Amino acid sequence: VTLNIHFADRLLSAIRRTNAPVCVGLDPVLDRLPKDLLADCGVQLSANGTVDPQTKPAAVAEALLAFGNAVIERVADHVPALKINIAFFEPHYAEGIRVYFELVRRAQRAGLLVIGDVKRSDIGHSCEQYAAAHLGQEVNLVMHDVAVPDAITVNPLLGLDGVQPFADVAREKGKGVFLLVQTSNPSASEIQGLKLAEGITLSERLAQIVHRWATQDRLVGSCGYSSIGAVVAPTDPVITARLRTLMPQCLFLVPGFGAQGRSAEEVALCFKPDGTGAIVNASRNVIFAFADPRRQRHGNDWRTCIEEGCKEFVTAIRAVRSS
Amino acid sequence: VTLNIHFADRLLSAIRRTNAPVCVGLDPVLDRLPKDLLADCGVQLSANGTVDPQTKPAAVAEALLAFGNAVIERVADHVPALKINIAFFEPHYAEGIRVYFELVRRAQRAGLLVIGDVKRSDIGHSCEQYAAAHLGQEVNLVMHDVAVPDAITVNPLLGLDGVQPFADVAREKGKGVFLLVQTSNPSASEIQGLKLAEGITLSERLAQIVHRWATQDRLVGSCGYSSIGAVVAPTDPVITARLRTLMPQCLFLVPGFGAQGRSAEEVALCFKPDGTGAIVNASRNVIFAFADPRRQRHGNDWRTCIEEGCKEFVTAIRAVRSS
Repeated sequence: VTLNIHFADRLLSAIRRTNAPVCVGLDPVLDRLPKDLLADCGVQLSANGTVDPQTKPAAVAEALLAFGNAVIERVADHVPALKINIAFFEPHYAEGIRVYFELVRRAQRAGLLVIGDVKRSDIGHSCEQYAAAHLGQEVNLVMHDVAVPDAITVNPLLGLDGVQPFADVAREKGKGVFLLVQTSNPSASEIQGLKLAEGITLSERLAQIVHRWATQDRLVGSCGYSSIGAVVAPTDPVITARLRTLMPQCLFLVPGFGAQGRSAEEVALCFKPDGTGAIVNASRNVIFAFADPRRQRHGNDWRTCIEEGCKEFVTAIRAVRSS
Repeated sequence: VTLNIHFADRLLSAIRRTNAPVCVGLDPVLDRLPKDLLADCGVQLSANGTVDPQTKPAAVAEALLAFGNAVIERVADHVPALKINIAFFEPHYAEGIRVYFELVRRAQRAGLLVIGDVKRSDIGHSCEQYAAAHLGQEVNLVMHDVAVPDAITVNPLLGLDGVQPFADVAREKGKGVFLLVQTSNPSASEIQGLKLAEGITLSERLAQIVHRWATQDRLVGSCGYSSIGAVVAPTDPVITARLRTLMPQCLFLVPGFGAQGRSAEEVALCFKPDGTGAIVNASRNVIFAFADPRRQRHGNDWRTCIEEGCKEFVTAIRAVRSS
């Protein structure tokens, strides 16, 4: 049981073991799941790709669970971590939440660290409730027989009050938090890129603030990295290099590789010269690899396509890191 | 069925009908629920206030549902809206989510508009998933037999990409969105109060951006207000007055009255001279009114205390508005 070992120490150790500073993102949308899996679970799609409203919620849940399990099974030997985005489970309400937390458990049993991509934000008592729900309060875990992620993503707009409850649970339970500093979307700069009076951008100032929060008492592990990391999409080489310097003790969770278009060279700036400091995520290029025409030779064997997509992703990031 | 009538038109009409520009916040924590209700539902608390881990999840769900129903029953005649914070339901996992959406349905059946305080943030496909889950995608609502809120709160840090999917559903379905602009917590100014190069604070710049988003094609209703409103805590009179001017077509959802310490005078600045433009929230002062020593004369009749707390809150805000 590694529950109370420092999160960054656990993640760095898992990255060394697999030689793969990556995580696979599980963002399942029903109309992109393999047709045979949907049919096996009794999920009918209409012509426009939406699910038939007569479908039983249990059938949808079964499809999401079966797909998630297949991804876990095929990537667990190659990568240290799985990032599961809860947004793709919330449209399925209570059933969706049940499947999300069941997949957290299955991934951990398969030896993966799990990052819950929940991007939560709130203050005071409400923030404590989110911390309890997503990073774990013992009594609730026992009562509900549930497993929670090893780390989650959090939105820092509300300031320290919106981060401290997560940091406190992280410190106590060996969990991690990745704070949004620079996101990968086209309009990210609309707010994150605002120029401050002091001459830097909001994302640079966020980085300074995150560094201060991350280096609080007992948050830094023996590996030198903090339980508090940052989500950093390498949208601009100059900014990325600045952010890497401003947060020397933060692990970067790096979105945007592959489907979102960030190149290997841009991603390389998120690593330190010693090859540590970043974990790069790819979602669609791996979990929907079977939709890639290059993989037609595998026919309907979508599981093999996912494993192949995962191995190609790992190879690409290894090359980035050593470049 | 009012489903596709513009959200701001619906809310203003409900405020006129009740003569009460307020909403009650339902933020239930187990250890503050009435002892007799907990006992009736079979929920045991330990000495330090945490729930006994042997308690059945169904018992906890029953207690949350029974308390929420009692609040709805006692406030529905006095106020136009209920704000339910999903953070207080997520620690109860699938059961908690089931209760949250069941309370949305019950409140709407009782004639209340419901604001889902979910403070979600994400981009692209993920954001669309949150919009579908929390503001409603027809096929999922039918399949899961679920009712969704009339409006939700959203965190704007990610820029327009993180807002547009919510705005699109709002426009199409008569729903509303309240974007966080100025929050009520002690450290809110740490980021929201940052001074920009142009000489204003981040929250003022957010207000300008929110105004631009809110006045997009077909988002403004016949009442002159947009489906996109703003969360504005009156933490500083000068800033509050500026925000009111910067977002003339946005309804303000105003937290912080009562337990969080904002005074009537500060709250008054969120209204326009004509008495419209704001809906003020109170949570703990209403739903935990039975814990107030002033109400000891009601003995164990916690329901009457809640109704009394609600009526006092409405009276206080009526005085604020006409001052």
